Order: sequence, then structure tokens, then C-alpha cells
Amino acid sequence: MSDDPETDDDRTSGDRTGDPPMTNFPVPDIEDLPEDLRERIEEETERAGFTPNVFRAFGYKPSHFRPFFQYHDALVEDTPLDREEVEMIVVTVSGVNDCLYCVVAHGALCRFYSERPKLADQLATNHRAADLSERRRAMLDFAVKLTEKPGRVTDDDLAALRDAGLSDEEIWDVGSVTAFFNLSNRMASMADMRPNDEFYDFAREME
Amino acid sequence: MSDDPETDDDRTSGDRTGDPPMTNFPVPDIEDLPEDLRERIEEETERAGFTPNVFRAFGYKPSHFRPFFQYHDALVEDTPLDREEVEMIVVTVSGVNDCLYCVVAHGALCRFYSERPKLADQLATNHRAADLSERRRAMLDFAVKLTEKPGRVTDDDLAALRDAGLSDEEIWDVGSVTAFFNLSNRMASMADMRPNDEFYDFAREME
Amino acid sequence: MSDDPETDDDRTSGDRTGDPPMTNFPVPDIEDLPEDLRERIEEETERAGFTPNVFRAFGYKPSHFRPFFQYHDALVEDTPLDREEVEMIVVTVSGVNDCLYCVVAHGALCRFYSERPKLADQLATNHRAADLSERRRAMLDFAVKLTEKPGRVTDDDLAALRDAGLSDEEIWDVGSVTAFFNLSNRMASMADMRPNDEFYDFAREME
Amino acid sequence: MSDDPETDDDRTSGDRTGDPPMTNFPVPDIEDLPEDLRERIEEETERAGFTPNVFRAFGYKPSHFRPFFQYHDALVEDTPLDREEVEMIVVTVSGVNDCLYCVVAHGALCRFYSERPKLADQLATNHRAADLSERRRAMLDFAVKLTEKPGRVTDDDLAALRDAGLSDEEIWDVGSVTAFFNLSNRMASMADMRPNDEFYDFAREME
Amino acid sequence: MSDDPETDDDRTSGDRTGDPPMTNFPVPDIEDLPEDLRERIEEETERAGFTPNVFRAFGYKPSHFRPFFQYHDALVEDTPLDREEVEMIVVTVSGVNDCLYCVVAHGALCRFYSERPKLADQLATNHRAADLSERRRAMLDFAVKLTEKPGRVTDDDLAALRDAGLSDEEIWDVGSVTAFFNLSNRMASMADMRPNDEFYDFAREME
Amino acid sequence: MSDDPETDDDRTSGDRTGDPPMTNFPVPDIEDLPEDLRERIEEETERAGFTPNVFRAFGYKPSHFRPFFQYHDALVEDTPLDREEVEMIVVTVSGVNDCLYCVVAHGALCRFYSERPKLADQLATNHRAADLSERRRAMLDFAVKLTEKPGRVTDDDLAALRDAGLSDEEIWDVGSVTAFFNLSNRMASMADMRPNDEFYDFAREME
Repeated sequence: MSDDPETDDDRTSGDRTGDPPMTNFPVPDIEDLPEDLRERIEEETERAGFTPNVFRAFGYKPSHFRPFFQYHDALVEDTPLDREEVEMIVVTVSGVNDCLYCVVAHGALCRFYSERPKLADQLATNHRAADLSERRRAMLDFAVKLTEKPGRVTDDDLAALRDAGLSDEEIWDVGSVTAFFNLSNRMASMADMRPNDEFYDFAREME
Repeated sequence: MSDDPETDDDRTSGDRTGDPPMTNFPVPDIEDLPEDLRERIEEETERAGFTPNVFRAFGYKPSHFRPFFQYHDALVEDTPLDREEVEMIVVTVSGVNDCLYCVVAHGALCRFYSERPKLADQLATNHRAADLSERRRAMLDFAVKLTEKPGRVTDDDLAALRDAGLSDEEIWDVGSVTAFFNLSNRMASMADMRPNDEFYDFAREME
Repeated sequence: MSDDPETDDDRTSGDRTGDPPMTNFPVPDIEDLPEDLRERIEEETERAGFTPNVFRAFGYKPSHFRPFFQYHDALVEDTPLDREEVEMIVVTVSGVNDCLYCVVAHGALCRFYSERPKLADQLATNHRAADLSERRRAMLDFAVKLTEKPGRVTDDDLAALRDAGLSDEEIWDVGSVTAFFNLSNRMASMADMRPNDEFYDFAREME
Repeated sequence: MSDDPETDDDRTSGDRTGDPPMTNFPVPDIEDLPEDLRERIEEETERAGFTPNVFRAFGYKPSHFRPFFQYHDALVEDTPLDREEVEMIVVTVSGVNDCLYCVVAHGALCRFYSERPKLADQLATNHRAADLSERRRAMLDFAVKLTEKPGRVTDDDLAALRDAGLSDEEIWDVGSVTAFFNLSNRMASMADMRPNDEFYDFAREME
Repeated sequence: MSDDPETDDDRTSGDRTGDPPMTNFPVPDIEDLPEDLRERIEEETERAGFTPNVFRAFGYKPSHFRPFFQYHDALVEDTPLDREEVEMIVVTVSGVNDCLYCVVAHGALCRFYSERPKLADQLATNHRAADLSERRRAMLDFAVKLTEKPGRVTDDDLAALRDAGLSDEEIWDVGSVTAFFNLSNRMASMADMRPNDEFYDFAREME
Repeated sequence: MSDDPETDDDRTSGDRTGDPPMTNFPVPDIEDLPEDLRERIEEETERAGFTPNVFRAFGYKPSHFRPFFQYHDALVEDTPLDREEVEMIVVTVSGVNDCLYCVVAHGALCRFYSERPKLADQLATNHRAADLSERRRAMLDFAVKLTEKPGRVTDDDLAALRDAGLSDEEIWDVGSVTAFFNLSNRMASMADMRPNDEFYDFAREME
């Protein structure tokens, strides 16, 4: 046990009481939000069993909330990619960008959809250390390059995805998920969004 | 004059006939797009006098077109930032990300809204070499850091913006414009979107 | 569900059956190891309830096994630093170096010794996003700089640690833990060491 | 229109009255320069229709002025490379080094000699996004590598240029133009040299 | 001759009187060290003709001294690699990490064991500029990658070493020497260890 | 002793017979060079006791030879900086750029002019590890920044030099030496220029 007087303060953030949705901007009460936002939030809360903090945080600016979640929903619903694959890209990109909120929240979703409880930790740390099919390794290599060096992506990189069997629309969608989370990671880092406690240990049980 | 046999091919891209909207994905005809996309495109075409290629390119996937432009419109319409300031951030961020489409297209808008014909070239090359008020220098320094090292942004960086006089909402919006164009730059680079010829020399005349 | 034929292979690595200790070098049987190695391994196995894979992997070369674990033991036993602090440094450094084995294995130890179930994920992703005392923030900032840019560390950096209240020996030890895991991360990455399944969800329960 | 009190100051730099040649060192009057410098400057002024600011700036130190321009003149006059190709290298290198003076001044020359009004903006932003012959793409790839990572250039890189059809002397000259502008970019950035207004919109008209 | 009043101070460090073993931590007298450390130091002093400063420096913490030198001794004694090759790796890695102590001290050993008086300066500056067999070039390329980007090392990199003729144990040892000096470089930089004067010009004579 | 068949080849380059001036371009005989080049070379040969290889190498293109050495001579002759200081900058910059020729050749000059036999190795490895006056530390910090990140140099960096006591002309010259060797390093790396054997151990004797 530490005798450091500041340790106690440190420890409180481990409580179940949880972190605030974000610390760098004020967070409006849900009941003060416009009707359509409240509906979208309620829907999510019902599905997840709690309100993911990114919804609370984006309530700060409703005109941004709407297209942010509409874009997100299109990325996971209108795509030939597996949901599992989408979440794998999100976790990998968010790991490259050192984004706590997205690594933890989408790590939970990645575990859930992949039914592979170790996968999110592997991808968030280093996708090269995960056991992946050739197709998925190619997807994640591309997502990392587009994240780190967007101006160096050329048609050679797209050709590598085609060689790995991806269709045009799949390539567009891999790029779009990557691009969207390059937005999302920056919003979360700027606002200091905090993952809900529930995400940390969600879907970790192994068979 | 070069005796390189490929030179002639090089030169054709300088013609007024113009570049295609993007080269890495097929571009649908406008008349084949859903009604709401066609309306948004017509509106933009009327305003600009031509159809910016990003609209043609995003026609590839209507479910992405909608939130992309809705988000964009919110960033320029629902904000205490000057439109001039928004475009200054866009050009600076796009220069860091080496994104041809956004540097050239938003360079035109930056010249137009700022009425400073040299400003876009300065910001696209190096915002540190432009003459800027303290407020704007702080905004662009922040945009560059959030672009290059999103995980290193801390509340100290936000404090610097507050010291330069920015309100909470202005800071959120500076960050949001930066984040959105980190998405946009990656989409344009991945798809190899090409700026319309009209953007290159728009609003360059000096008094 | 993916129709990718390689998906099934992907999934097997999520089984409790577990990963091999490392994939890039052969792993000797414990019973074939020298007596002193077998004793050290048995002791660890008893303490942990399983044999951490790094012990199996270093069995490949007994003359390296001995000083590696002797050094490790000195770092955690002969130091004025809390064990919690040592593991915080390890997880932070291993996150910077993208080392899967060390992030996962020491993430478990970090959760255990800190009794803060969220701390390891925070540090592995981005220590700047964790709630830390000034002392610990200074320790981790130093560990990151010594990891990323060892040649840029100067006495100014040590002065910052002294300002945060660290003694000479504490500074030596922060640097030593950092330096040792810069060795360890490289051995684990080169050998492709795999964390035992047990580490992934160890000590995650919140109160 | 901004209500920012500093905006007016910002705007003055857009005036035709123009920027000073450099801001970090005093600029001597042309009439106070040695005879040979005055002659070289007059010659350039006649050719261009105005005095490019780099001539005024290097007047600060005549013993540097002389070899700087002698070297420059050799690079564009005593070479099997097209002048167009020389300026393409200059603009690309200067873009990598974020050098405002050289991007804008040599952007004008690149447009003029190539008769491709869009080429300079493409190269300054990202030469990978320009339509180039294989020969020129190879030249610019080499120039970028020699600029960014000079110690990593090996004979493999020279072999790639030979494969693209370049002679020994052409390779020496591509390297020399690149090396010289790595000098020039650093002088311009250190001195804060400002491009003359005339360069910004020179040779932009499309046919 | 400079008229800078601080020049004289500068010059004293060029005296044969020599630098202290390290400047950032106190250095205990040899006679105050535990018996086993004194014996190891005496042995080294007899072999070298002087006491290398790293032995004096690690005396600061005997529990670290022991495994540090035991590990070091295993790396040079229990390996199929030539001692010359080991020192080549050390100098190359230490050059990448900008570590003065290790470049100078192991530069001396590299000259001694290789009997190539120019080799150490070549490797410390840029191993790509040295004349090397394919085997050694592959070893050093691997050591540099494992130093600079440990998380990007994959089995492809190990395959390149196998193609260059290295056995499994040789690869393990190349990696181990690299990893150990990534520890050692960081300890030397943190502590500001100073190479003994004797190392600078040791074994420089050409035949 | 290695049993590697390529080792013998390795070793020959350590012979006094010496390296060729450069390996990537043909080196003309001195007697075939224009009169003025031969004179300049003879003068240097007399002064040094041998012909530094950079003179032989630049003989490849006389129109580049002339301004290259004229610029160089102005930098060392027409300056308020000590020659010692000039060579310190050269060695530091060349170390950052990993340039073997310049590190070794100017390392010799740095030892000679500074009369500090250890200084060049310190600066080539890491100027932060050398004992320097405040003035010289500021000069070298500036040279490194201008080398690594030319576009990030601002008037704040020049102010730091003024604070350390440098005059305008001294600042211009520090920047010019830095800029010139950013040219020179790239020429030497591209051409694979080799330092004469004489440079390696020149002026190393300690008092």
C-alpha cells in the first residue's frame, strides 16, 4: 500500500460510481436535449443497458450529434463488412491514435461481436501480434497506413486490398470506418471523453 | 521541351477539360442518385457555378453522403467562428495531411472568405509563416497538434486557447473542424479525389 | 457471420486452450531445463497459479534466463517504489512499444497491485488520459521520454522528477524499470511471446 | 466579417504593397551592394519584371550571395534535365520542408516552364497525387527520400532512377537540385523570407 | 581563439584527467562496494588496464550491477556469434540511440575485435555506409529495426535473417544483444555516464 | 575469428590503401580537370598533406565544384564565428543526418581547431552529452532544429540565440553553416563519398 498522500485521490477513479462523460466541456442533462436526441439516446440505453458516454458528450452540440451518429450508424448498418470487422478496424485505429474512449468502448464491442475475448486487447496494442486471416490482416494494415500517413496512400495500397479479396465497396467502407474514427478519436481526445465503467470488462469471459 | 515520350500524357491533365471527380472508385451519374442528393448537389452547383467533385465522389455511397454534408454544413453554419476562420483551419489541417483535394478546394474558399489572396498558400505550406493575430495563431497551432498527435492533446492545450480568448463553444468547433477534415482528408486521399479546375485560380486576384 | 473461410482459424485462438509461449523459437519442456530454472519456474507457478509464458520462452537460453529474472526481481524487490508504481511504468512503457505480451501480462499485475481495475487499460492506451497524482504523472512522462527519445533525456528531465518529490534512488529505479522493459518488450516482440489467457481478465472485477 | 480586433492587422498583408524581403535580418538597399551583386540583381529584375526577394535577402552577406546564385545558375543551366523538371523537384522538396518562399516563388516558375497551371499546387501538396510519367515520379520519389532521410539513401535508390531511364549525370543533378534546395529552404525559413506578391498568381491562367 | 569566457571551462573536459563515471547520480568508492562487485571490477580493470566507467556507475545499486554484468557476459561468451559481430551490433544500436558512453566504449571494442580501425565510426554514424558482408548487413538492418520500431518486427524480418544464413540461436542472440543495449543505452543516457578517455583512441592505429 | 567466407572482403576496407573518393559516380583524374579546379585541389592537398575525397568527388561536375567550395570558403573565412565553432556545427549537423563523410572529415577538423580530442565524437553522437558553454549549446540546439524541422523554426528560436549573446551576423552564419551542410550531407550520402583514411585518427592524441 502506498504512503503517497495523493494515492487516495488516484484510487477514487476506480470506483463503480464511474467517470463523468467528459471533463473538458460541460455535459447537458439528457432531459434538456432536443426530442430526437433523447430518442436516439434512449434507444441506445435500452440496447446497451446503460448510456454510452459519447452520447452524453455529443449532447453538447446537437447539430453535431445528429450527423455524427447518422454517419456511425451507416458505417455499421449499410456495409458488406461484418460488424466484427468494423469493430476490429475501430479498435486498431483507436490504438494507433492512443484514444482511451474508443479503445475501451469499441474494445467491448469487438469482443462481443467477434466472440473472441482476447482480440480487442491484441488489436489495441498491436494488430501485427494477433492471429488474423490474410483478408483481415490486409484490412488492418490499410487502416493503419491511412491513419498514420494518409498522404502516402496510393492505388498500390488499394490493389493490395483487392488482392486480398475485398470488393470496391468493402474497400470504401474500410477507408470510411478508418476516416470516421480519425474524426471520432480526435473529438474524444480533445473533450477528454471517459469510457463508462461497463465497457472495461464487458464480454471478457472465455469459454 | 522534354523528349520524354510520356510528357505529352503529363500535359493533358493541365487542360481545362478537367480531372475526373475521383479515380479509385466509379462515379455515378448525378441523375442516378436519390432525389435528396440531387437536390443538395443542385443547390451547391448553383451557388458555386460548378459541381465540386467531392459531391460527385460521395454519390458513390448515399448513406455516407448524407451525414458527411450535414456535418459539414453544421460546422460552417452553426458556429461562433467566422467562416474565414473555419476555412483557415481546413487549409492548415489539409496541408499537414498532404491532401490535394482539400488544400485546393478549401484554398479557394479561404481566399474568398478572407479576401486575402495569399493566405491559403501560406497556410497550406506553413501556418507559422503567415501573419496572424494571436487568436488565430493559437487556433491553428491547436489544429495542427490535434491533427499530428491527437493523443498528446491535454487540457493545457485547451487552456492556451482560452488564454487567446476563445470560448468553450469556439474551442469545441475548432476541434470539430479539425476532426472532420481528418476524416475528409483521408476519404479524399483514399479515393484519389481531384479538385475541379475552377478551384485552382479562384479568388486569387489582388487589389 | 463472415463467410471468409479463414475466420474459423481466427476464432480458435480465442479458446481457453491458449496460445503457445512463443511462436518464433522452439520452447523446451520444463523438465529438460536446468535445476535452478525449474525451481524458479515452480516458485512462480505456485504464486500465480499458472506458468507465465515468459518463463517458458526464456527457457530457450538458460544463460539469459538467469540474469533476466534476477534483474526483474531486483527491480520489484529492492526499491523504494511501490509495486503498483513499478507495474504502472511497465504498462506505460510497453504500450509505447506496442508489446502485446507485456501490456497484457503486466496489465494484470497493474490491476492487482493498484486495486484499480481500469488503470492498466488507461496506461496502455495513453497515460495522459488517466487520473494520476502529480508524482506519478511525472514518473510516467519521464518513462515515456526515456523510451521514445533516450538521447534527448537531460538533467532537466531529472530535475522535473526531483521537483515532483522523487529521491535519487527512486529516479534511478524509474529509469531502470523503463530501461529493463525496453529490453523485455524487444525480446517479446522478436520472439512473438504470447500472454497466457489467464492474464487477459485477471483482477478486472470492480467493487 | 470578423469582429476580432486583430483582423485588420491580419488583412494588411494581403495588400499589393507587398511583404518585406525578409523579417528576421535587416535588408540592405540595393544601391549599397557591391557592383557585381547589383549587376546580377538588375539582370534578374529585367528578366522577371520585379526583383525576387531572395536576391534582396542574400544581399545581407555578399560572400554568400555569390556562390549561392552561381550554384543555382549551374543547376538550371548546365544540366541535361529540363528546366520544367528542375522546378518540379524544387517545388516538391520545398513542400516537404514547408518552405513558403520556395513553394510560392518556384511554384510560379514550375507553372511557367511546365505550362501546366495546376502542377505546382499538386507537387507542393503531394507529388503522389499528380499525374506524372514514370520517369518524373521516380525523380520526385528520390528527391523526397533524399530530403526526408538522407542517411537511408543507398545504391538501390540510384538503381531505381537508372531503371527509370536516368543517366548518371541526370541522377547527380536530381540529387544536386534536391540538396541545394535543402540549403535554400533552411535559409529562407531561418530568415523568414517572404515571396513577392507577383509570384502567387503568376502563370495560373488555363487555356 | 574564442574570446568567450566560457571556453576555458569547455576545454578542461579534454584533459587526460578524465571525466567522472557519471554526473547524474553519486558514484560510490570501489572499496565501499560488496566483495563480489569489487572482484568483478578488479578482473575487468586488470583485463582493460583501467576501470571502465560503467562498472563504477552501476556500483550505485549492487542488486542491478550483478544481473547487468551477468547478462552482458552471457551475451559475449555463450553465443555462436563472433565477438566482432556482437560489438558491431552494439555500436550500431548505440548510434541509433545517440548514446555517447556505449558508442565510444564499444567503438573501442569493435575496433579491437574486428581489427578494422574505421569500422566503429562507420557503424556509429550509418551502418548503410559501411562495407559489410550480406550476413552482417542483414544482422544490422534487423538490429536497427528492432531498436527503432520494436512493434513492427514480424516473422518476415526473422525470415530475412534465416535467408542470410543465421541459425535460430544466432537470431535470438542478435535480438538479445540489441535488446540488452536498448536497456544499457537508456541507463547510460539517464545517468549521463561518461566514457573513459582511454576508449576514445583505443585500437585506432592502421597498419 | 569468423568462419564467414565474406569476412575477408569485409576486412580489406580497413587497409591503409584506402577507400575510393565515392562509389556511386565515376571519379575523374585530377589531371583531366579544368585549371582552376586543379589549383584549388593542389592548394588543399598542400595544406592537408593529402587530397580530401570531397574534392575528387566534386570534380565530377566542375560547374558545381566551383560554387560549392566558394560557399564553403566564405563560411569559414568571412565570419565572426570561431573556426572551432563552425566545425562543431558541421559535426553536429552531419551526425543528425547520419553522413559518414562529413562526420569523419569534419570530426578531424573539429578536433584540430578545438584542441579537444574527444569533442567530435561527442558532438557526432549527441551534442547534449558534451560539456558546452551556454552560447555553444544554444548554437547547436538551433542547428539541430533547423536541420530536423526547418519549417518549425520561428523568431522565438532566433531570440534564444540572441539571449545567448549571438549577434545578427553570427546567427546568419550559424544558420548558413547548418544549411550548407544539409546540402553537403545529401551530396555525400547520394554519391557514397568515403572519408580518406587520414581523417579517422587525425588530431586524436590527448595531452
